[in-house]
Amino acid sequence: MLLGKVIGTVVASQKDIKLEGLKFQILQLMDMNGQLTTNYVVAIDAVGAGVGEVVMYASGSSARQTSVTHNKPCDAVIMAIVDTWNMDGNTIFNKAEEG
Amino acid sequence: MLLGKVIGTVVASQKDIKLEGLKFQILQLMDMNGQLTTNYVVAIDAVGAGVGEVVMYASGSSARQTSVTHNKPCDAVIMAIVDTWNMDGNTIFNKAEEG
Amino acid sequence: MLLGKVIGTVVASQKDIKLEGLKFQILQLMDMNGQLTTNYVVAIDAVGAGVGEVVMYASGSSARQTSVTHNKPCDAVIMAIVDTWNMDGNTIFNKAEEG
Amino acid sequence: MLLGKVIGTVVASQKDIKLEGLKFQILQLMDMNGQLTTNYVVAIDAVGAGVGEVVMYASGSSARQTSVTHNKPCDAVIMAIVDTWNMDGNTIFNKAEEG
Amino acid sequence: MLLGKVIGTVVASQKDIKLEGLKFQILQLMDMNGQLTTNYVVAIDAVGAGVGEVVMYASGSSARQTSVTHNKPCDAVIMAIVDTWNMDGNTIFNKAEEG
Repeated sequence: MLLGKVIGTVVASQKDIKLEGLKFQILQLMDMNGQLTTNYVVAIDAVGAGVGEVVMYASGSSARQTSVTHNKPCDAVIMAIVDTWNMDGNTIFNKAEEG
Repeated sequence: MLLGKVIGTVVASQKDIKLEGLKFQILQLMDMNGQLTTNYVVAIDAVGAGVGEVVMYASGSSARQTSVTHNKPCDAVIMAIVDTWNMDGNTIFNKAEEG
Repeated sequence: MLLGKVIGTVVASQKDIKLEGLKFQILQLMDMNGQLTTNYVVAIDAVGAGVGEVVMYASGSSARQTSVTHNKPCDAVIMAIVDTWNMDGNTIFNKAEEG
Repeated sequence: MLLGKVIGTVVASQKDIKLEGLKFQILQLMDMNGQLTTNYVVAIDAVGAGVGEVVMYASGSSARQTSVTHNKPCDAVIMAIVDTWNMDGNTIFNKAEEG
Repeated sequence: MLLGKVIGTVVASQKDIKLEGLKFQILQLMDMNGQLTTNYVVAIDAVGAGVGEVVMYASGSSARQTSVTHNKPCDAVIMAIVDTWNMDGNTIFNKAEEG
């Protein structure tokens, strides 16, 4: 899994029928130190993540293993909202401390 | 999923029998700011996308989860045509405003 | 899918039993403008492609969806021989015009 | 598989129901010479690895082939703790010699 | 598939139960001209390859399609030992000519 921040949304009325009702969120990927990179992915939200939240997503066939994405043409799913992210004894991110 | 613009077509008369009748479209990938990159992918169209349209595609085994691509040797599928793409409160792309 | 040119062959007498009789071809990948890159992949041929031909290949589990590669330890398959490849109104490649 | 060092943890209370009770560990990837790179992955631990240990992880659908990760939205699993890593006759890493 | 040279071994006593008895080999990847790169992968050996041999490996779910790796948390398998590798009429590698 990789970590990213929800920064936007894609709306698509003309889409595969299996995708009706799903929410496409744009994640800006974060590096190991919690810095935003220039890479992104569009992921389907399986956990109710909102814009600005730091999340974890799974790619590939594993992105279809939630009840929301099962058997759908989806290769990236937000499967967790990050509370804390610690590394080498330091707190890289703590949701409770965010504005 | 990633975003791209349909910029062309590949025609192949000699192909695996499961691919008969399918349309291969060339997508030029877009970065997070909606700019075209130098990367591309050839995807099978499952939603009737035309040249010039901004689309979303899924890769890998997830590309076989539409009725058009089921069980076929296809690793990329156009599964949605983008209407709007918003990010940090800005509109990166709006189909209705395109020429 | 991506596009490449068949430039060579790998011969391997000692291999997994499921791979007996299959042809391993080396593809030099092409960029969006039809130029050869320095990247390659070894793919199993499912369509009778010959050296010098421009082909399309599928990767990952999708590479096992042809009758030739079904259930085999193969992660790349040539599933089409390209006739024409058009982009932004220009012909990038036309098999009929090749020497 | 690739090799990495466990350097931290991600805690996420709001997550897909299938992920309850699993441990998300941050791996800093290592290059061929055992040096730490700037790349990372978040993996689910299937072998009881601790912070500071050098481990091997599997990606993609193969990450769901342990009893811990079966059918879960997980695309990376720690499936082994490295004892020794030898290359060209040299010891790159030996767990027994670590502090 | 990609090509690489077997340059070492990883030993891991603490590992997922499905991996008991398997051999983890380190492959240094080769470029299109047969030169060693700085990239590597750890692969499970399904064909009895030895250190110094040039091999072909498959990645992802295809790595689980040998009898040795079936249903195991393995994302890379050595599925062939290369005899010859020819490209544009030149021999890039010939096992019979190696010391």
